Amino acid sequence: MLQLDWLRSRSISSPAHPALVWREHTWTYAELNAAVDELSGRLAAAGLREGQRAAALLPNNPNFVMLIHALMRLGVTIVPLNVRLKADELRWQVERSACEWILGDGSTSAQVAELSTRARALVVETLPAAGSFLTHPFDLDAPLAIIHTSGTTGHPKGAVQTLGNHFYSAIASAFRLGTLPDDRWLLTIPLYHVGGLAIPLRCCLYGTTVVLPSKTNFDAESLLDDIESYSVTMVSLVPTMLQRMMELQPSPPALPRGGRGLFSLLPPGEGPGMRVILLGGASAPLPLLEKARELNLPVAQTYGLTEAASQVATCTPEQTRAKPGCAGSPLMFTSVRIENEQGEPLPPGEIGEIVVSGSTVMREYDQNPDATAKTLRNGALHTGDLGYLDADGDLWVVTRRSDLIVTGGENVYPAEVERVLLEHPSVWEACVVGVDDIQWGQKVAAAVTLKNGEQATGEKIQAFCREKLAGYKIPREVRIVESLPMTASGKIQRGEVQKLFREEIKR
Amino acid sequence: MLQLDWLRSRSISSPAHPALVWREHTWTYAELNAAVDELSGRLAAAGLREGQRAAALLPNNPNFVMLIHALMRLGVTIVPLNVRLKADELRWQVERSACEWILGDGSTSAQVAELSTRARALVVETLPAAGSFLTHPFDLDAPLAIIHTSGTTGHPKGAVQTLGNHFYSAIASAFRLGTLPDDRWLLTIPLYHVGGLAIPLRCCLYGTTVVLPSKTNFDAESLLDDIESYSVTMVSLVPTMLQRMMELQPSPPALPRGGRGLFSLLPPGEGPGMRVILLGGASAPLPLLEKARELNLPVAQTYGLTEAASQVATCTPEQTRAKPGCAGSPLMFTSVRIENEQGEPLPPGEIGEIVVSGSTVMREYDQNPDATAKTLRNGALHTGDLGYLDADGDLWVVTRRSDLIVTGGENVYPAEVERVLLEHPSVWEACVVGVDDIQWGQKVAAAVTLKNGEQATGEKIQAFCREKLAGYKIPREVRIVESLPMTASGKIQRGEVQKLFREEIKR
Repeated sequence: MLQLDWLRSRSISSPAHPALVWREHTWTYAELNAAVDELSGRLAAAGLREGQRAAALLPNNPNFVMLIHALMRLGVTIVPLNVRLKADELRWQVERSACEWILGDGSTSAQVAELSTRARALVVETLPAAGSFLTHPFDLDAPLAIIHTSGTTGHPKGAVQTLGNHFYSAIASAFRLGTLPDDRWLLTIPLYHVGGLAIPLRCCLYGTTVVLPSKTNFDAESLLDDIESYSVTMVSLVPTMLQRMMELQPSPPALPRGGRGLFSLLPPGEGPGMRVILLGGASAPLPLLEKARELNLPVAQTYGLTEAASQVATCTPEQTRAKPGCAGSPLMFTSVRIENEQGEPLPPGEIGEIVVSGSTVMREYDQNPDATAKTLRNGALHTGDLGYLDADGDLWVVTRRSDLIVTGGENVYPAEVERVLLEHPSVWEACVVGVDDIQWGQKVAAAVTLKNGEQATGEKIQAFCREKLAGYKIPREVRIVESLPMTASGKIQRGEVQKLFREEIKR
Repeated sequence: MLQLDWLRSRSISSPAHPALVWREHTWTYAELNAAVDELSGRLAAAGLREGQRAAALLPNNPNFVMLIHALMRLGVTIVPLNVRLKADELRWQVERSACEWILGDGSTSAQVAELSTRARALVVETLPAAGSFLTHPFDLDAPLAIIHTSGTTGHPKGAVQTLGNHFYSAIASAFRLGTLPDDRWLLTIPLYHVGGLAIPLRCCLYGTTVVLPSKTNFDAESLLDDIESYSVTMVSLVPTMLQRMMELQPSPPALPRGGRGLFSLLPPGEGPGMRVILLGGASAPLPLLEKARELNLPVAQTYGLTEAASQVATCTPEQTRAKPGCAGSPLMFTSVRIENEQGEPLPPGEIGEIVVSGSTVMREYDQNPDATAKTLRNGALHTGDLGYLDADGDLWVVTRRSDLIVTGGENVYPAEVERVLLEHPSVWEACVVGVDDIQWGQKVAAAVTLKNGEQATGEKIQAFCREKLAGYKIPREVRIVESLPMTASGKIQRGEVQKLFREEIKR
């Protein structure tokens, strides 16, 4: 299936509409398209050709947004790299995905040069004058990006996402959350994650506006300012980000009309306002959702994964209020079933593996037929996550399968134990993991952080759990730590937490 | 390109959301899907098979909406028939498009029986028990419907619209007008017109709600009640319909909050309200647009045609206020160019034929290779309409090419003369046509209706025109009539108006 070049078509359809806003700069769609034509010409002159692969190592900035559109225009597959990784990890990804090019900008030129081995390094600002290039239609079956899964365990795998995956993800997301001509989506998620990459693609298809945060690194206060200054209506957050922003803005401002930051939705209807806070990336603690509900924040819970070009199931803000903790029903053109270990479908209410089919499911893991065969069976994505469908057809995610703890033959879902820990008045964050144990196979262990000024001991917290959980679910160890290890996308790194306990055992 | 069955996918994605509202009845998507499964089974048992064609003669009612989904589910092409046509005209369409079936319901069973010749007649309520049928994916390249163009001149032609045409029309329309989960679209346009048929398909893709008018025939007062009673947020109107509704509701109600009917958008933000009045089907008189602007109605002007599955270019309500009379920029994935008679592209500002390319352009005219070859050249739709693009890339439609008047070698655009006539304080509606004339080739003639209680003569109106128009544009005859002949979709029938003058000449 062929389509017109998305950005070019949008630049004809909405030439004067803002495409990209960053600090004091605004690019209309006509301007962005012209800049991308210019960049495409320079990349073509440098030798980039349709069908090649280019790694991209950039922070979230206008260069990266333009580079994504330019590579799509040239038919070059994007392999976005996580700027937080070490040189060895990056080199592994560049080589493993057989990139001909590695692209950066002034902010990453040193790292890019260092990585250049077989892949040739280019820095976008220093490319020589533009050459000509062939415009060609977009092929929905062609690979758009290879995104390496964050890989909390083992080597990362490169999910090959087609243009069609992102196209269908974009339309199905719009048909769940709605889209309005004046929407402005704050790009809080790194572009090397699927939830970030999807945003400029979606805004281009919808004809809406991408707002880049003023600060490159996550800064809750600066994001709240950006939301207000740039009339942001949509924002994607992971729970830890929302939590920190809510701490800074714990209640709606006492203004007669309008609001600011997260509360720009109050009162509704007066011009633009925050319409959707898309909350994903990790399961959200219930106390966080309850607090958000009290404050009437338009939180939309979502469950998605790199292998399905982001959203699989999503609640509207209204549904989130009605069913906190639920991931909602599958998006249009996506279907979800729950399977037992024999691959048989399970009825509503029964927990099993979440299996996803539809137009957003990746083509394969790049150059990894074993992993592909294990994960994609008859086109259905076996996510390795555990969950169930309720009687309404809504999905509840219980845990990543790899996070499941089996202790003495009993299944323990970390999220359930974490929920109880978070009910403890002194506990701020919690992570529950399984630790190898000779007697039980695994034993339950927890690392927690405490709220400011609060004091508690592991024993007291265990005692608290004892009132609320079956014996086998109670953490055998509760360790109080200063902070929990996080990934770039704000997920708690369970692998790192497990290491804490392993080290403790060794000592 | 294959997709999941739209309604089935939507029924999984939004099972409990209202799909269809009619009088006191509501069908959720799960209920509508079940009813369509049942109907599909009955149609399959009666003998309908994939690849066949079925004419459908029904008014806008729940049966017709279900029948459309059922025929799509079975892979049967829909040939919707205009209920206002005479038996001979209908028979011509059924035979010409080689329909195997002609379908009706209780309200049309007599006509359906009468039409049954080669095509077998079925009345949906009397179908025997359901049989089984094969579910199959939707093929975007397959024909969804054959819609006969209203044909103000000559024999109607059957535009073959694929599923892909409607799919892309739906998404591009949403990405211009926006879509919100609680949108409710009032189905005011007959389902046998493309602008009507598109609505249940779009709502299904978007996951929003179709509201069927309580009265089958156009009734402005009843529509205003429906808008209020059923919290309608979107409505498609032709100018005459909007005009009549504005007459009944000439100013916003003096309520402290909220509003009713057309004004349910005032003040905005308090729950649902009228979001878009999509105004198409005929060029709207400027006084109507100005009145609507004064009243802050969210009118979105559109230019579309059956051969492009409806919308080609559309303004948002904001753009309509800024540029009354403009059709806006092309929708996403659609492109528009202006050609001279030699087929060469014209620069901005120059009037020529509107030529449309993109994913919504029909496959062909059914069994009419000559008309297809004349209209579709290299995949580009030669609309026969005249217009120009302005410096912003926005389309202005000047006239249907067939309506152009050539008098003494000069081009006269009826819309321009009509605009002047409508400025006359006594004139209510106006239609300007060319009438064959030995001396001038054609001469300009006008039929007008007067506002209630107003009096004027043709001579006085001609004198009024003389102050505002070049001599050759002034109507040589101005005839005052009780009413102007209209098509079912509310367009003035220029052919009928021309007949008035021809008859006058004969007398």
